[in-house]
Amino acid sequence: MRLVTYRSHAAAAARLGAIVDEQVVDLESLGSAAGISLPHDMLDFIDLGPDAVRVAGALLTAHAGKWPVGVAQPFVNVKLIAPIPRPRKNIFGIGLNYAEHVAESSRTLDTAKDLPKQPVIFSKPPTSVIGPGDAIEHNARITQQLDWEVELAVIMGRRASRVTEADALSFVFGYSVMIDMSARDCRRAGQWIYSKGQDSYAPFGPCIVTADEIPDPHTLDLWLTVNGKEKQRSNTRHMLFKVPHLIADISAGITLEPGDIIATGTPDGVGAGRTPQEWLWPGDVVIACVEGIGTLRHPVVAV
Amino acid sequence: MRLVTYRSHAAAAARLGAIVDEQVVDLESLGSAAGISLPHDMLDFIDLGPDAVRVAGALLTAHAGKWPVGVAQPFVNVKLIAPIPRPRKNIFGIGLNYAEHVAESSRTLDTAKDLPKQPVIFSKPPTSVIGPGDAIEHNARITQQLDWEVELAVIMGRRASRVTEADALSFVFGYSVMIDMSARDCRRAGQWIYSKGQDSYAPFGPCIVTADEIPDPHTLDLWLTVNGKEKQRSNTRHMLFKVPHLIADISAGITLEPGDIIATGTPDGVGAGRTPQEWLWPGDVVIACVEGIGTLRHPVVAV
Repeated sequence: MRLVTYRSHAAAAARLGAIVDEQVVDLESLGSAAGISLPHDMLDFIDLGPDAVRVAGALLTAHAGKWPVGVAQPFVNVKLIAPIPRPRKNIFGIGLNYAEHVAESSRTLDTAKDLPKQPVIFSKPPTSVIGPGDAIEHNARITQQLDWEVELAVIMGRRASRVTEADALSFVFGYSVMIDMSARDCRRAGQWIYSKGQDSYAPFGPCIVTADEIPDPHTLDLWLTVNGKEKQRSNTRHMLFKVPHLIADISAGITLEPGDIIATGTPDGVGAGRTPQEWLWPGDVVIACVEGIGTLRHPVVAV
Repeated sequence: MRLVTYRSHAAAAARLGAIVDEQVVDLESLGSAAGISLPHDMLDFIDLGPDAVRVAGALLTAHAGKWPVGVAQPFVNVKLIAPIPRPRKNIFGIGLNYAEHVAESSRTLDTAKDLPKQPVIFSKPPTSVIGPGDAIEHNARITQQLDWEVELAVIMGRRASRVTEADALSFVFGYSVMIDMSARDCRRAGQWIYSKGQDSYAPFGPCIVTADEIPDPHTLDLWLTVNGKEKQRSNTRHMLFKVPHLIADISAGITLEPGDIIATGTPDGVGAGRTPQEWLWPGDVVIACVEGIGTLRHPVVAV
């Protein structure tokens, strides 16, 4: 399933939907028409666990192309918002998780040249999340070095504490796209939350693809353009620490919960690593894609 | 007011109470007896804003010593939990915010000798919070360097985006105590969230004292003992970046929301800064106090 959170119009309540062909199918309404209770909120749906995914998937298959009245509408008519508009805790970001990005970072930032021996974990607050098409804020009072990073996002499906690598993927609900925005000049004593955690610094979406449709998350091309010019292109196979390792590692000390998000790191091609360095400015447009999931498009605006 | 979140017995629901003399007064019940609607949850109460604080305060004053039946019970009969058991976002921690702690850290950790020019911000996930008396987890598979840090915690009362220092204190709901536990050997590429964000690493409480009772948060003694021996003792007047500065600085980039927590940094005397270094081990007991707020007492246990 390709799950979204959407509004039928700007003032409408946020609803849980599935994209089928060019339609958004409202899951609560679809369930209701079949006498089955499904929630209208993504986190509530994730909380229900794998059975709910199976039930919803079966309903979508059974009704495809012949939706009950009022259940589906053309995709172009709705406004997508972030799949999880308000995560329950900070997003876990992984730094320096692609070899070439480690190299470019060590040349131009304050990070080490050697590959990390363990995942480098940082965080972004829930308030940093924006949805598809929303503006990335450029606050010139704070930064002159706003940078991009396209990443595969992992959405946790079950509470995970001290899980093994072998079991880790069974705790995943699905996958999405996140742009890990960074104000490179806002690092402080090496800490990244202020440089990566400001409002609007976590563009997220456009959908969550459930894990059953992506049995191996390490086969996906990902790329990013600025104003139509390609800046990043790689494949998730190049991650240094793969998704099972990340989940096992974080959950060894920090309990992961349903709906928690792990942004798995970015490949090379960020602005800080270029010669000369490049930064984002108001009027720029950033487009980021992970193969098989979807594309995010965001304007940069002055605030 | 001295506000707590408590359970009447182990299996009871969490309730919002105020400590008056040796009694816990249930605020929802007190309001109900007076025909006034008050919530039973701390975050819901904070969301109501300053008027709710005034109303509750007036009710407590009016009824002091002659509580309606069922509204109050002896403090010793209840179990306190963390004042906000589940924060809505990560806790913001401030590193290196007392001069002597900057010095001891630079001697023994990987931080700079110079005083920071801006607040050093890091974060702890909501899952790191534990309440008064709860066990601090010692996970020997992950750390051999578990350390203590007593801190004044600031609880935000209103949504704060780009507020000035002059206005900042008007956004504060109240103050509490937090122990910023740190596994010094879990820092990774300088990032602190994994070393400071593990489950149980944010002992929090025992109460929130509303801001009207602490007009100046920079006059408070704070201290910490391990197994009865004093390890830290200072006063919040020695903070390098004071509370208004911290709120203005964070809110310049990151929206603060009602119930958000800022742990304002620790004075010197941490285990890492001692000669020889000292760490916590299962069986140890940590007691931390901020003057006028209260005392936390936590055993360290193996997990």
